[in-house]
Amino acid sequence: MLEDAKKQLYAALPYANIDPESVLRLESPEKTIEVSIPMRHDDGTLKMYNAFRCHYDTTLGPAKGGIRYHPHVDKDHVQALAFWMTFKCAAVKVPFGGAKGGVSIDPKKLSNRELERISKAYISAFADFIGPEVDIPAPDLGTNERVMGWMYSEYRRIRGGNPRAIITGKPVPLGGIVGRSSATGYGGYYVLETLLNKYLDKIKLPSKDNLRIAIQGFGNVGYWFAEKCFKNHIKVVAYIFRYL
Amino acid sequence: MLEDAKKQLYAALPYANIDPESVLRLESPEKTIEVSIPMRHDDGTLKMYNAFRCHYDTTLGPAKGGIRYHPHVDKDHVQALAFWMTFKCAAVKVPFGGAKGGVSIDPKKLSNRELERISKAYISAFADFIGPEVDIPAPDLGTNERVMGWMYSEYRRIRGGNPRAIITGKPVPLGGIVGRSSATGYGGYYVLETLLNKYLDKIKLPSKDNLRIAIQGFGNVGYWFAEKCFKNHIKVVAYIFRYL
Amino acid sequence: MLEDAKKQLYAALPYANIDPESVLRLESPEKTIEVSIPMRHDDGTLKMYNAFRCHYDTTLGPAKGGIRYHPHVDKDHVQALAFWMTFKCAAVKVPFGGAKGGVSIDPKKLSNRELERISKAYISAFADFIGPEVDIPAPDLGTNERVMGWMYSEYRRIRGGNPRAIITGKPVPLGGIVGRSSATGYGGYYVLETLLNKYLDKIKLPSKDNLRIAIQGFGNVGYWFAEKCFKNHIKVVAYIFRYL
Amino acid sequence: MLEDAKKQLYAALPYANIDPESVLRLESPEKTIEVSIPMRHDDGTLKMYNAFRCHYDTTLGPAKGGIRYHPHVDKDHVQALAFWMTFKCAAVKVPFGGAKGGVSIDPKKLSNRELERISKAYISAFADFIGPEVDIPAPDLGTNERVMGWMYSEYRRIRGGNPRAIITGKPVPLGGIVGRSSATGYGGYYVLETLLNKYLDKIKLPSKDNLRIAIQGFGNVGYWFAEKCFKNHIKVVAYIFRYL
Amino acid sequence: MLEDAKKQLYAALPYANIDPESVLRLESPEKTIEVSIPMRHDDGTLKMYNAFRCHYDTTLGPAKGGIRYHPHVDKDHVQALAFWMTFKCAAVKVPFGGAKGGVSIDPKKLSNRELERISKAYISAFADFIGPEVDIPAPDLGTNERVMGWMYSEYRRIRGGNPRAIITGKPVPLGGIVGRSSATGYGGYYVLETLLNKYLDKIKLPSKDNLRIAIQGFGNVGYWFAEKCFKNHIKVVAYIFRYL
Amino acid sequence: MLEDAKKQLYAALPYANIDPESVLRLESPEKTIEVSIPMRHDDGTLKMYNAFRCHYDTTLGPAKGGIRYHPHVDKDHVQALAFWMTFKCAAVKVPFGGAKGGVSIDPKKLSNRELERISKAYISAFADFIGPEVDIPAPDLGTNERVMGWMYSEYRRIRGGNPRAIITGKPVPLGGIVGRSSATGYGGYYVLETLLNKYLDKIKLPSKDNLRIAIQGFGNVGYWFAEKCFKNHIKVVAYIFRYL
Repeated sequence: MLEDAKKQLYAALPYANIDPESVLRLESPEKTIEVSIPMRHDDGTLKMYNAFRCHYDTTLGPAKGGIRYHPHVDKDHVQALAFWMTFKCAAVKVPFGGAKGGVSIDPKKLSNRELERISKAYISAFADFIGPEVDIPAPDLGTNERVMGWMYSEYRRIRGGNPRAIITGKPVPLGGIVGRSSATGYGGYYVLETLLNKYLDKIKLPSKDNLRIAIQGFGNVGYWFAEKCFKNHIKVVAYIFRYL
Repeated sequence: MLEDAKKQLYAALPYANIDPESVLRLESPEKTIEVSIPMRHDDGTLKMYNAFRCHYDTTLGPAKGGIRYHPHVDKDHVQALAFWMTFKCAAVKVPFGGAKGGVSIDPKKLSNRELERISKAYISAFADFIGPEVDIPAPDLGTNERVMGWMYSEYRRIRGGNPRAIITGKPVPLGGIVGRSSATGYGGYYVLETLLNKYLDKIKLPSKDNLRIAIQGFGNVGYWFAEKCFKNHIKVVAYIFRYL
Repeated sequence: MLEDAKKQLYAALPYANIDPESVLRLESPEKTIEVSIPMRHDDGTLKMYNAFRCHYDTTLGPAKGGIRYHPHVDKDHVQALAFWMTFKCAAVKVPFGGAKGGVSIDPKKLSNRELERISKAYISAFADFIGPEVDIPAPDLGTNERVMGWMYSEYRRIRGGNPRAIITGKPVPLGGIVGRSSATGYGGYYVLETLLNKYLDKIKLPSKDNLRIAIQGFGNVGYWFAEKCFKNHIKVVAYIFRYL
Repeated sequence: MLEDAKKQLYAALPYANIDPESVLRLESPEKTIEVSIPMRHDDGTLKMYNAFRCHYDTTLGPAKGGIRYHPHVDKDHVQALAFWMTFKCAAVKVPFGGAKGGVSIDPKKLSNRELERISKAYISAFADFIGPEVDIPAPDLGTNERVMGWMYSEYRRIRGGNPRAIITGKPVPLGGIVGRSSATGYGGYYVLETLLNKYLDKIKLPSKDNLRIAIQGFGNVGYWFAEKCFKNHIKVVAYIFRYL
Repeated sequence: MLEDAKKQLYAALPYANIDPESVLRLESPEKTIEVSIPMRHDDGTLKMYNAFRCHYDTTLGPAKGGIRYHPHVDKDHVQALAFWMTFKCAAVKVPFGGAKGGVSIDPKKLSNRELERISKAYISAFADFIGPEVDIPAPDLGTNERVMGWMYSEYRRIRGGNPRAIITGKPVPLGGIVGRSSATGYGGYYVLETLLNKYLDKIKLPSKDNLRIAIQGFGNVGYWFAEKCFKNHIKVVAYIFRYL
Repeated sequence: MLEDAKKQLYAALPYANIDPESVLRLESPEKTIEVSIPMRHDDGTLKMYNAFRCHYDTTLGPAKGGIRYHPHVDKDHVQALAFWMTFKCAAVKVPFGGAKGGVSIDPKKLSNRELERISKAYISAFADFIGPEVDIPAPDLGTNERVMGWMYSEYRRIRGGNPRAIITGKPVPLGGIVGRSSATGYGGYYVLETLLNKYLDKIKLPSKDNLRIAIQGFGNVGYWFAEKCFKNHIKVVAYIFRYL
């Protein structure tokens, strides 16, 4: 997956004026940490789970990226996602590098208690690798603000104080930002709106009234994107449920 | 390679009274860190090298294990060697867990300056993961006391003080132990001597006078083993030069 | 005193929709530290003083609360005041938890040098328990900006740097905020003004012209409240000097 | 209870040549920390428990003292026990000050899981107050080497590494000392033996053969004391089961 | 040089209402650190260089001041410059104290590689003495944003993370501020402009049209000052190249 | 004074096989810190004192050296003494580097309270530069075990715990070593004894019976040396009181 991701880099190179040594550095992730987390399930059985965190490149600032819970998560997967985060942050000029983390687990098969346990175990395993000037995790596929809340509470318990800047996407009463859950979906919609309003001549999109939209996924992103479309009278004709 | 190593664990299980949850934990390495180290060669070219450190299991004490420089080094390689270190330390009841580290590089192709640079870069990349109560590196294949000296000096430069307990195998003036270089080879010889003196009836070895020995490798271990054999009139009939 | 304070909590519960486990947590202070501070008086005698700091609840942010010098200060007293700080911060939605500290001493019987000594001893005794993301002390009954200045200077001396965010109510040249001393009294007046201007129909207050005010205490709060009343032609008819 | 304990100090003063300022300091505990620990029971209910740690006096070295689980534990109780630890360490000239900790809980009413949870919560709540040069806890009434093992594992989990010197009385494989469990009981017996062998003329004890012993308590101390008596043919005529 | 600088203080005293104890403190630098830095030149020779950092006074905030590379740099030189920084910061009411650092070296005789090596050695030698709340270095004579970039990169390498606030004057992509290089020269010009526009009657300057300007030095300051003069039609009639 | 000291190094060089780069490093002190300490005298006046600490060379281990109170103390003085400490430690093969510190003050003119204040101020000013693996101060001219006791108590007060290894020469109850005060004088005597017993033929000393000794200084060293001479019937014919 990282090899695929890097093909995008190579494809973009001819269009950028970038010195070869920078390319060399962008080809390799700075640091990847892999831990085995033992978790006791509600039925008493103990299982080991592989957990990851990759800081792909931090030249432009502290690493930023979500924590994904999904059975497909492995080292390669996390490195590729951290690679993309590096370019996403650079493209929009926020002063962050790219990171990603995850656990190879299916969150849908976990009880709330189990989800809480694996989340607290994750953040305590990686507590030395994060921080406001180092790496700031966030929710991603399979995690949400409740998971971030558990992680923040556990971090507070083991390190003390109220270091709110160590993780984003927390519940609002614990220092999360209002509007965070809808931000990604709304953001997507605003991109669409800008395209329609300003660049219609440059791209091959039908006009707003004739636009027919299919949304892939209906989670935290798709839901709020759809809501905006609905309110703005843009037709959503299909939802495609599949991920990864 | 780790899978192979674990087969030895499974083969040993029937002979040990070990609870299944402990086996479960021994099947997975606690923590593995992987970094990309940029190194400028004497000719001015910059290359990236993969470097690793694995703490396999630290239940019995701080992790202990060498740093290997060899082109074959990769994550699997380092994890397997750290797995064996775990059992080696446990078998001789020293209060240490098992670790291993390494760089995927051929030290024979490096100048002294390059060797110094990669060694100093290695220890500064992993400085947060080692320490007297955490993980204490040591020389291994492709590294030696001079390399440990460079690493110790760099660690002192970036962290300050004289924390001698952070690495073993240092040169004697920097706090290394007299007799360290010959220790592994001599140790092997003392095992042989004990077998010949006390257990000759239980094993299928010829008596000391008829013994003919072939030594695989002639580095830091083979050399001193051979020296002991020579002084004790045990015939060494062949040296096999090949490693890994 | 804490038991009394909790009665207010129980009285408020029927009006709030609050889950019983949260009540359970609000009934007990998170952490209370109690130290004995030896202080040599100007006449050469050494006396021991009890000093306290309580972090009542820090769910909503770092603990915030003053340091009180008063003979009545004891553990119960400090916990009750920290309990109220928790609710005060929550009520006005500032992202802080509730704390309070104090020394069981009568500041009026101390010379300036003694006051400086006890203040510096207090902050060095509690230096490990405060910090911008942990607990930020402030002046309270019996302490003022000069005391905060001594505490800040001592903290700087023993920990180094210029960590201005560790204490509020400092003298302006050391990083204090202009207008700090009058803030509490003015704040009280603005509450009064808002009541008179907007809610006169809902409360049983005479109109501004007929209002006759008695002020309990004439310290840092009462003084500035009175000054505002005077400037705004509100009649202050009595000052009641008594505290606690 | 501390007031009672201090009466022993006052009773001893006429026999010691001790300056009044030292007495003054010995009358007050240096530092006492009190936290509220939320613990979810196996049946799902959440309860709050009061937990304590007192460093009574650390002039002679890091504080040393056990962690007691008992319903009678409160601040006064813990301070009195820490007071006695101060004098015990001083009397036998080990370079330690006196400490004690505890939780107000009945360990006999807890399941193993609950006991593990409260123990891990205790050590993480007090992790900032202990350390090899600060305060080294140990087992006491209601706790044992398994509890110390849980505490050590949790401390390792949240702080990292293998800091074995932070707690004593751990299980042997985790760095505990062989013979630890029998040490207190054996120690008591050796005192008795010394009295019988060397000081029989100075004290009013019957000779070894006529001695009849009643043991109060039959826990970790009484058991091993009794075993020694039995092996040495000293008659134990009664066991008194009651504690505190 | 510091003695000379202090004469300015003494000359100013009659005009200021400043208590004698504050003068006493302003006469002595708070802290000066001096280290010997070994640097291997490109030709293989090793030379030792004296490097300095002085925190003159930090009452008003963290120390602030540049790092100078010049053969004249010595302890006295650095202390005098730090003295002036103290007053410069105080005069413009920025909440900083005064600092200065430097290396006794001629940067014009160094290759780029040598300049990089001495810069990285400097920042790692002084890494314990700087920080956002302690002392924040900046470029000065003989150093520039590239040097700051090397220093920042080395600091990141040895301490980890992205602590951008530890040094100012960094290249923009590493967190530097746009407009930083021209700021000092422009600042000088704006002072001139203000004099001409508002205070012409109070000072003996010719009017803007008749003004003839000589610029001493044509580095980072003189260049941008001249550029502003040119654009605003103020005549620059001479450049004087000499420094110190 | 350092230049004089280095002449001894140059004089010794022809007799040693030492590479020129090592000489280069030995010519410059690694690190020297200089602070201004404000101290309020008993009569209320505030004075500034210059205080120093030099780590001359730490290749062989943490820096070791005393703290001197004497009006002659300045940077050069302290560097020269630290230079000698480096060679003293190396000569007797203890794993320490060389350090020295001091205050430019006449301790004979200070009251006990002033001496305590300056000593506590010294150790808090240099607390960041010392430590068991960094630099371990000790008494020297003008300081003694009481001064070390004050310094240790102050260090404990500001940093916490019982870090006994941070300073030597403490009073015995605070962790000092029995026999410390007489150690230097006795050591000198044992050197004399060894010369007389083993090397009389190689040196130009009279035999023990004819020996006549003049002792320069009669402080902590001279006193105990004289006591040994007296007990061993070696004639001391003169005491010379003068120092430096």
